[in-house]
Amino acid sequence: MNKRLQSITNWLHKEDIDVLFINSVENVYYFSNFYTDPHERLMGVFVFKQADPLFILPGMEVNQLKDAGWPYEIIGYADHENPWDKLREAFKARNVTDAKKVSFEEEILTFSRANTFLDLFATPEVVTAESQLNELRLVKDSTEIAIMRRAAEMADYGVKVGVNALKEGVTELEVLAKIEYELKQKGVRDMSFSTMVLFGEKCSDPHGNPGEKQLQAGDMVLFDLGVIIDGYCSDITRTVAYQSVNDKQKDIYQTVLNAQLAALKASKPGTRIGDLDLTARKIITEAGYGDYFPHRLGHGLGISVHEFPSMSHLNDDLLQEGMVYTIEPGVYIPNVGGVRIEDDVLVTKDGCETLTKFPKELQIIT
Amino acid sequence: MNKRLQSITNWLHKEDIDVLFINSVENVYYFSNFYTDPHERLMGVFVFKQADPLFILPGMEVNQLKDAGWPYEIIGYADHENPWDKLREAFKARNVTDAKKVSFEEEILTFSRANTFLDLFATPEVVTAESQLNELRLVKDSTEIAIMRRAAEMADYGVKVGVNALKEGVTELEVLAKIEYELKQKGVRDMSFSTMVLFGEKCSDPHGNPGEKQLQAGDMVLFDLGVIIDGYCSDITRTVAYQSVNDKQKDIYQTVLNAQLAALKASKPGTRIGDLDLTARKIITEAGYGDYFPHRLGHGLGISVHEFPSMSHLNDDLLQEGMVYTIEPGVYIPNVGGVRIEDDVLVTKDGCETLTKFPKELQIIT
Repeated sequence: MNKRLQSITNWLHKEDIDVLFINSVENVYYFSNFYTDPHERLMGVFVFKQADPLFILPGMEVNQLKDAGWPYEIIGYADHENPWDKLREAFKARNVTDAKKVSFEEEILTFSRANTFLDLFATPEVVTAESQLNELRLVKDSTEIAIMRRAAEMADYGVKVGVNALKEGVTELEVLAKIEYELKQKGVRDMSFSTMVLFGEKCSDPHGNPGEKQLQAGDMVLFDLGVIIDGYCSDITRTVAYQSVNDKQKDIYQTVLNAQLAALKASKPGTRIGDLDLTARKIITEAGYGDYFPHRLGHGLGISVHEFPSMSHLNDDLLQEGMVYTIEPGVYIPNVGGVRIEDDVLVTKDGCETLTKFPKELQIIT
Repeated sequence: MNKRLQSITNWLHKEDIDVLFINSVENVYYFSNFYTDPHERLMGVFVFKQADPLFILPGMEVNQLKDAGWPYEIIGYADHENPWDKLREAFKARNVTDAKKVSFEEEILTFSRANTFLDLFATPEVVTAESQLNELRLVKDSTEIAIMRRAAEMADYGVKVGVNALKEGVTELEVLAKIEYELKQKGVRDMSFSTMVLFGEKCSDPHGNPGEKQLQAGDMVLFDLGVIIDGYCSDITRTVAYQSVNDKQKDIYQTVLNAQLAALKASKPGTRIGDLDLTARKIITEAGYGDYFPHRLGHGLGISVHEFPSMSHLNDDLLQEGMVYTIEPGVYIPNVGGVRIEDDVLVTKDGCETLTKFPKELQIIT
């Protein structure tokens, strides 16, 4: 049994949980090394306290799962079959018919599926799986870090392509297309989220939509993008100036950069996670932009583009070596513009390392 | 109140449901014309039997929602706030504190959120929202059809770009990159799913992954792609031959094409939906390939790339004018290859129209 499955099985023993249903694409990948998203069709791994795990998925993906090396039972089903009937049989074969305590991802599994699962048993107690699964994924091992390094390198490359594509009159979508094209030429299949390229005052919307807006001298340009490499995400934001920059833009930029660097400096094992947000926020507030930094400092990064730890000022947990997260303070002033600077950060033994390495000093692209 | 909200409010009256929580990105868009996916953050529309609707979402998206024209209450919340506290207040202001009957998307809403919602009330009865919401979206109006026509045109264009990019030694990912690049140049921001370009024996996997495989003479090439235009999806599959084709490939191709055309011919108001699958399947089975057609004939298409109606042989519902779905029979022979042909189909008054129009006769690309 692989180390991850062993670890979660140990947890089932400790908590006396008869069966755990892992349903999220991300956690299934974490435990099986098989990445699949069959959308509305049922897919997942069941882990048992006292029996071997099983994997259920649409029949047409069974061969891929075998090729990926899953060594335990595989239940494939056709579109006209009810997968829960097959699961009932599989549970019976394992003598798991009267589970007293079950677990699943309460924040992922739908109400309908959760109830179908619960209805397999008499009156099962439910233990939430999230905290344990998130805990397991919180600290990355060396294999994961090596993959995330490659994902971050590709994100850097994406920003570089974007910066090189800037010219008078080019549209946000044209730059975006160029970035994704060059990344795909390098073997990237999927972006980790919908790529953002924003010009001028559109940068003032933290969740803006790239469109047909044309680049003009004096615009700030914001890139926010990431790629998926072997199932792991990167996520970088850079803001540059096009042709010229005014004093206000410079001041905002320098403030955000100072905040970002301060949060990086505070990143080391043992630091209270929420303090990173407070450190960055203090700098932005003291510069007079506190009202224009409406989001948390960042988010954990890994198989999910947003995972734990949450880099919110409320997070009382402590940083540990091997955690990976983003630091991405931003200042957004409606109808003026915005700046965000984001790196992917790995906590090391005595500090941190940014996995994304694209320069952060204010660049004026000419 | 817009027609869609009015229609769902009428349903609440009819079923005596006090409050409906609409949480899926797709249904929220359908009712509000605002498309947003704040991932793990709470977002949704609450519709009441006897009060105006409200929209809850992260504070940093409030301005976008206002710009989109949402005329009712908007609740924005910061990352450090509990959105459910704000909802409790909003419900109180509407005198909805003791809902007896509530509704939500049981197949979308997570177990955790559903229970948080239910805990707002004493012992509410739950009515599933899915059937009613799916029913509303099942038949497209003229605005939706106009958008879907444009999405289908872009899908056609994507296949054209892909076919033109074929040359000895090119990789699957290179062709994929070219397709998405050209589509983005035309103003497409997002694909409706991860684009598929497969060569040779890789076409035998209905859910294969494009990679570094290089094109060789004699390969079949399968394209499966779609775009999102104004929130609506298209989805096309074409299979072509590169340089040459052998008799077996020709036979498979012609069988799949015959099956696809037969299902198209059967598409008209009043036909039992399941009969389309049976019609196509019969042709494939009689040609000796029945075991190699492992999936349903197709799926409904609209705001979701997979929605209702399900084009399964088990579907006893009847086709109605304005329904849009895919017809995509396929034959996949392991280690040999596969062929799938897929169109987006609109049911018209007395038949159907394919929205995707890329040619389907077997093409040998030289």
